[in-house]
Amino acid sequence: MSRALFEPVFVPDALREATGDTAWLGAMLEAEGALAVALARAGLVPEAEAEEIRRCCEADRFADRLDPEELGREGRAAGNPVVPLVQALTEAVSGVSEEAARHVHWGATSQDILDTAAMLVARRSLDLVLADLDGLAAALAWLAREHRGTVMAGRTLMQQALPTTFGLKAAGWLVPVLEARRSLLDLRRSGLAAQLGGAAGTLASLGNSGLPVLREFAQELDLAEPPIPWHTARWRVAELGNTLALCSGTLHKLAVDVILLSQTEVGEVAEPSGGAGSPRGGSSTLPHKRNPILSTTTAANAQRVAGLAATLQGSMAAEHERAAGRWHAEWEVLSDALALTGGATAAMREAMEGLEVHPEKMRANLDATGGIVLAENVTTLAAGHLGRAEAHELVEAACRRALERGTHLREEVLAEPVLQRILSPEEVEAALDPEGYLGSAAGLVDRALELYDTEVSS
Amino acid sequence: MSRALFEPVFVPDALREATGDTAWLGAMLEAEGALAVALARAGLVPEAEAEEIRRCCEADRFADRLDPEELGREGRAAGNPVVPLVQALTEAVSGVSEEAARHVHWGATSQDILDTAAMLVARRSLDLVLADLDGLAAALAWLAREHRGTVMAGRTLMQQALPTTFGLKAAGWLVPVLEARRSLLDLRRSGLAAQLGGAAGTLASLGNSGLPVLREFAQELDLAEPPIPWHTARWRVAELGNTLALCSGTLHKLAVDVILLSQTEVGEVAEPSGGAGSPRGGSSTLPHKRNPILSTTTAANAQRVAGLAATLQGSMAAEHERAAGRWHAEWEVLSDALALTGGATAAMREAMEGLEVHPEKMRANLDATGGIVLAENVTTLAAGHLGRAEAHELVEAACRRALERGTHLREEVLAEPVLQRILSPEEVEAALDPEGYLGSAAGLVDRALELYDTEVSS
Amino acid sequence: MSRALFEPVFVPDALREATGDTAWLGAMLEAEGALAVALARAGLVPEAEAEEIRRCCEADRFADRLDPEELGREGRAAGNPVVPLVQALTEAVSGVSEEAARHVHWGATSQDILDTAAMLVARRSLDLVLADLDGLAAALAWLAREHRGTVMAGRTLMQQALPTTFGLKAAGWLVPVLEARRSLLDLRRSGLAAQLGGAAGTLASLGNSGLPVLREFAQELDLAEPPIPWHTARWRVAELGNTLALCSGTLHKLAVDVILLSQTEVGEVAEPSGGAGSPRGGSSTLPHKRNPILSTTTAANAQRVAGLAATLQGSMAAEHERAAGRWHAEWEVLSDALALTGGATAAMREAMEGLEVHPEKMRANLDATGGIVLAENVTTLAAGHLGRAEAHELVEAACRRALERGTHLREEVLAEPVLQRILSPEEVEAALDPEGYLGSAAGLVDRALELYDTEVSS
Amino acid sequence: MSRALFEPVFVPDALREATGDTAWLGAMLEAEGALAVALARAGLVPEAEAEEIRRCCEADRFADRLDPEELGREGRAAGNPVVPLVQALTEAVSGVSEEAARHVHWGATSQDILDTAAMLVARRSLDLVLADLDGLAAALAWLAREHRGTVMAGRTLMQQALPTTFGLKAAGWLVPVLEARRSLLDLRRSGLAAQLGGAAGTLASLGNSGLPVLREFAQELDLAEPPIPWHTARWRVAELGNTLALCSGTLHKLAVDVILLSQTEVGEVAEPSGGAGSPRGGSSTLPHKRNPILSTTTAANAQRVAGLAATLQGSMAAEHERAAGRWHAEWEVLSDALALTGGATAAMREAMEGLEVHPEKMRANLDATGGIVLAENVTTLAAGHLGRAEAHELVEAACRRALERGTHLREEVLAEPVLQRILSPEEVEAALDPEGYLGSAAGLVDRALELYDTEVSS
Repeated sequence: MSRALFEPVFVPDALREATGDTAWLGAMLEAEGALAVALARAGLVPEAEAEEIRRCCEADRFADRLDPEELGREGRAAGNPVVPLVQALTEAVSGVSEEAARHVHWGATSQDILDTAAMLVARRSLDLVLADLDGLAAALAWLAREHRGTVMAGRTLMQQALPTTFGLKAAGWLVPVLEARRSLLDLRRSGLAAQLGGAAGTLASLGNSGLPVLREFAQELDLAEPPIPWHTARWRVAELGNTLALCSGTLHKLAVDVILLSQTEVGEVAEPSGGAGSPRGGSSTLPHKRNPILSTTTAANAQRVAGLAATLQGSMAAEHERAAGRWHAEWEVLSDALALTGGATAAMREAMEGLEVHPEKMRANLDATGGIVLAENVTTLAAGHLGRAEAHELVEAACRRALERGTHLREEVLAEPVLQRILSPEEVEAALDPEGYLGSAAGLVDRALELYDTEVSS
Repeated sequence: MSRALFEPVFVPDALREATGDTAWLGAMLEAEGALAVALARAGLVPEAEAEEIRRCCEADRFADRLDPEELGREGRAAGNPVVPLVQALTEAVSGVSEEAARHVHWGATSQDILDTAAMLVARRSLDLVLADLDGLAAALAWLAREHRGTVMAGRTLMQQALPTTFGLKAAGWLVPVLEARRSLLDLRRSGLAAQLGGAAGTLASLGNSGLPVLREFAQELDLAEPPIPWHTARWRVAELGNTLALCSGTLHKLAVDVILLSQTEVGEVAEPSGGAGSPRGGSSTLPHKRNPILSTTTAANAQRVAGLAATLQGSMAAEHERAAGRWHAEWEVLSDALALTGGATAAMREAMEGLEVHPEKMRANLDATGGIVLAENVTTLAAGHLGRAEAHELVEAACRRALERGTHLREEVLAEPVLQRILSPEEVEAALDPEGYLGSAAGLVDRALELYDTEVSS
Repeated sequence: MSRALFEPVFVPDALREATGDTAWLGAMLEAEGALAVALARAGLVPEAEAEEIRRCCEADRFADRLDPEELGREGRAAGNPVVPLVQALTEAVSGVSEEAARHVHWGATSQDILDTAAMLVARRSLDLVLADLDGLAAALAWLAREHRGTVMAGRTLMQQALPTTFGLKAAGWLVPVLEARRSLLDLRRSGLAAQLGGAAGTLASLGNSGLPVLREFAQELDLAEPPIPWHTARWRVAELGNTLALCSGTLHKLAVDVILLSQTEVGEVAEPSGGAGSPRGGSSTLPHKRNPILSTTTAANAQRVAGLAATLQGSMAAEHERAAGRWHAEWEVLSDALALTGGATAAMREAMEGLEVHPEKMRANLDATGGIVLAENVTTLAAGHLGRAEAHELVEAACRRALERGTHLREEVLAEPVLQRILSPEEVEAALDPEGYLGSAAGLVDRALELYDTEVSS
Repeated sequence: MSRALFEPVFVPDALREATGDTAWLGAMLEAEGALAVALARAGLVPEAEAEEIRRCCEADRFADRLDPEELGREGRAAGNPVVPLVQALTEAVSGVSEEAARHVHWGATSQDILDTAAMLVARRSLDLVLADLDGLAAALAWLAREHRGTVMAGRTLMQQALPTTFGLKAAGWLVPVLEARRSLLDLRRSGLAAQLGGAAGTLASLGNSGLPVLREFAQELDLAEPPIPWHTARWRVAELGNTLALCSGTLHKLAVDVILLSQTEVGEVAEPSGGAGSPRGGSSTLPHKRNPILSTTTAANAQRVAGLAATLQGSMAAEHERAAGRWHAEWEVLSDALALTGGATAAMREAMEGLEVHPEKMRANLDATGGIVLAENVTTLAAGHLGRAEAHELVEAACRRALERGTHLREEVLAEPVLQRILSPEEVEAALDPEGYLGSAAGLVDRALELYDTEVSS
């Protein structure tokens, strides 16, 4: 399975690390350490022994010396790497204290450690994603404010439809990014829960102390305390996947728009070229190419995250007290979903922070269609006299003639007998000015910016 | 496309209706009517004319006379059925008032009407789903309370692992159902927004009155007022799909458990047989069969909803101001996702409300394994003397011998020299009593019931 | 569940019918009739009785009088509509002959009838799809031949890259369409198998005559005879789904290209407008719009088929001798996948048969970039003197200067000291002529057309 | 992104290697080397120079010294690792011959190298998968033959339905495995094609020699020669994904059955325990557990492959001459799909080669239901006298009484007045003997074994 060759193309190093072998091992050991502490607080294990275990679990003492691949191979027989990890930890602790070693992993099952570790890995990864989302939101807010009045073509089904502003387009990118941010924040705050249930979810081997240990365990790790173990109630993981997919899907829309606006024939924006030191978007064969490579990376990542989220969704139908396969399918899939969402966020942040915007090209593209995108305005004007149906029909016919003859819509409207009778040349001229037909664009930008100020700045 | 033949197998009539042609047409007309009212409140249309339009939009006056199939065929050229619907409505209104007819659909684009209608259809469907979720939660709470002390085998990877209680199993079904309920309630309360943006999302044809019209429109329909139009910011729809998938996925787990517990060889529960009048789960060829057909239906629906949610997720990458295809893919998919989730909820409610529970068979299955599922308890007992590693090894060997020889684990433990030395026969006997090794099962049931009381009863 | 309102937008009537209730009922009755015939041929039932059953199964005698919705509702208890259908059929036959009625459905289980019916429905639908694929392939072959020399920009990552021809683009559409056609033909010829196994796949109730009955049953229906029953070996259905997804995915690429080439700013092709009688692609608000609505429909359908195929794939993990849910999830999903693939094929056929091609706009778009898309040719020329690396670097710099200054690449190349030394103005001029840098475009078109002639015409 | 810790749990080392960084790099260099050879054969490059390039591309000379991670990071700017790889190769060649270095990568674009490498990686991986499929098929054929007469319960919707044989169950596993094998063999033989089109698919930089170079390139690599470049005609990749999903889905069904048959309460089979040296299926807390871990791994892998195949399917809608994202999403996804399918195949092979079968438990489970699974046989017997409907009704009632009273079905049938009148005790006894109600089970096993002999042995 190819990793180091392709991964860095799509995922920044910080996220690769946060979702990598060492991070997972560290998180599992953190869970084992917290368990020891919780056992001590509940009075099941002497504090000194718990402390010995906890210290063995610290990364610089132990985790760094473990060979993930060896643990993985040893874990094949049990179906997960926790069994060999617990063996290694027990050995390490017994080197310090035989007594303490007897209490390693007490009360827990492999899934307790792995699920809890998954939550810790998710939390650290989400922090990175959220930082980039903040940067992206700031860049989009700046673009929306800066280009509040920059007129461009609004396009539906890829056809020029009506004038809009680049500010409103940026606001249309910003609002769902804020939504994704809010969802991820909510999830980070209350959706990540500790897992502790023991072999069958009853906390049986902890006798009467199961609930106190669970409470202390969750508190020590600063994770939510679940009402009951969730070994086979996987909505937390599915929802995490779904929220990552919503975030990536939102970024995908931004990427699609940037790619479309960057087309050679459109040329309204360009991704930052990356500077002399690290030119970006070059091609192995085409020296002139300036590919929208950050958006391309984002699109690729988002496509994959959607598939990964669907796989996590598929894990919900877990059997009895532990699933035979559906749980095992989650680990790498969740890792990849976190990393790729992070990669998409970092790429779009970079793209938007350095986006080149070409207002003059936006205006030129709009003007190239001979007033035709303002047909609706003429229709509305005429509808006041004729009703919408007749107005629509007459203006549509004028448009068709303008397109066929290559004339400006103004001429065709003024040459149409009925329209000519009810509309003055001045009215038609005004109706065909894009700046005069932006409706509530500016007001909508302001609403998006207010939302940004409320949610982020404050 | 086959519908009436298969649909009723999976979806109750109430939900088929709530997501059917007439419901959609009614919702679109409700949107057109609310738009007229909003235009009047914003001072753009005389109140009397708005009232004419609104009255024409009432179902019993107009919608029932429309032929959905004809509208669908006429909509093929435009790519959606709103265009012919607006024509029909305009004609109908002009029969009453030519003046009013001029203001039909003013300011709106097809997507405004269709998206708003989708939210109205979703709201009505969610109400039905939520009612069944309430019933299901009540049934599960009853089962959890009633069987708080009913001992059964906990099973991991489908192998008996440790004793648990049927009460805890029911609690483990209840908690995620409450979670699904909360998510759907949240979404129903604030996730369903009106859509109004006009042709390119600027509300251009409403001049300076766009924002007031938007506000009145949302208020009239009792839908959330979005900060900006969301024609191509589809997280609302994707999130709706994801939440339906989370709900269905949760029900899928319940269905899987019921199917597994109903197996001929397990026989711990049975779905209600449906009474003499309508026997259920029969087979065309096998007279003795009692199939878990409600759970089967639930599983089938959940599998499909997961696929539908993935398709909705795929619609997020919408181009510019209106997507060329991704939006069009949503309508039927959302309808199906709502209907099938409702079908799954209704089926699991019926299954759980009438579930036959066989405590004696639960106990018999547990006893059939000769104490082996309490091996962990013996290990824990021995670990106090030997450390977990050695205890695990010795008990595992005793288990293996018991399985090979068909003996009870008690005998093998007491015959093992090291274990014999450290454990008394009484201790071993006590350790092998399942009732004595339920850990926090009862306490966890109570936590789930508290959550139920907090969220639902109050 | 909304059907008649939206379906006709996406699926032509012929395919709606081929996958509709009546088609399914007819196919189930055809299976029951063929079973009676097979039983007679194997000597288990008197020929006259078999003939009575078979005649009752003929659509005009019986199927048309059935109410699909009622059967669906009655089928809810058994989990499928076969049980009530067999009851209705038995009643109908007993009206003619009590003796014959005893042999209705003998040896079969519900799944035998439903699976066999699914294959019959698939075959009739595939015939419709294949007819449209033939028409589409013919249209594409015509476009490839007609525009073998029509120069246009080749675009990578949406940026102009090098010249190509519209003929090669059409050939690039044609080859995968031929591949889809071949796959569907193969599947239609040998991938559709009869299903007959009885309640547990042993054909037990047919005694020693099971295998002869199976053989006659398959032969009577002209379906493949499977080596063993495939009640829970679902690759046939999954493969059918996958092949429909490959076909739709291929059409999706065509749709994407048409939509991109139709953009206002590109304008190189346009979908047929549909004639005066049935204008297409209009908008409810924008009189001038000419939306690529056939491609939009195709894209929407293809997106949905991909999701449906994934759901069918999910049905493979069937339990034991009959799946509890995974089988039930197949019926409507397969119906929809067939219908939507057919809708996509019909739409792309119509789009390509009437596609407006604008060679002059293709050339204008290419010329608008000042020779820059021929940079590779200059690089290759220079590489003969300097090596690829240095040539690439110098030409890339010249491109950058041309883009910055708005000059033609010719000027910048001739102004570059090193390039100027090694290349003559005539060489540079020739290198910058797009017609001179089409490589093997024409030859590749010929290869595609040969393939077409081999596979289709002969 | 965690890899070495989890990967070995699911994927054997041979497949990890075949899909790993070094394998990809080696395949890319093999493509570059073959290109040089093809250029020489077409007369574009001196043979000696081509030979210099080819030798530099040999793994032991060059690939092993490359740092995949560094190439990945350098590839971030261009969006793929080919650009830095070509730079490194060019440098390496220029160390030997400046002349030769000028011809490195001539005529190719990054996608040519990556797509061709993907095909080579796929071929090597498929060889490993196919070897394990052969072993699996042999094991299944042995089980089918050995247990041709081993009676067990056939189960539908998880309920005992009718007797069948374990031989027929194994045959039902074998036939789709043979189908998967055939599909993968077909794909390996003709579905893997070379890719060579240059920057826009016209082979422009090769002048008139494009087609000969393409032919020699494909031949040198022993890959199919495509009619035209397939940069954006991705059915090959989607079909590869689909075929891997079909293979994994088939294995998933086997895994589900093994897991269900291994349940504590069923106990009809057990996975091989792995021997004293490497016990398998143990648990970190439960010493007695014998988890079906090979089937669990298979199920997990199959679930993931289905999601990955859906992602590859999503790549079909590629834009113009190179997709902006959809192509980039393929590389790791394809790698994972190959590796996980291989992991599933290896695990099921190991499970089936060592499967413990317990015929006595199969018989005991069947006998435990008091003849009730033979109800159909009694119905058939009675139907000869009464017609199916009445017979079904009476036998169903007898079953219900037997279940309620815990009696044997024999007693209830003989106590029923109508049945008693028409059936003798001897007839009833014979009808309730499972060995006498196996229908064509043995004949169907023979058909599967014939298929095996035809497809594999010969």
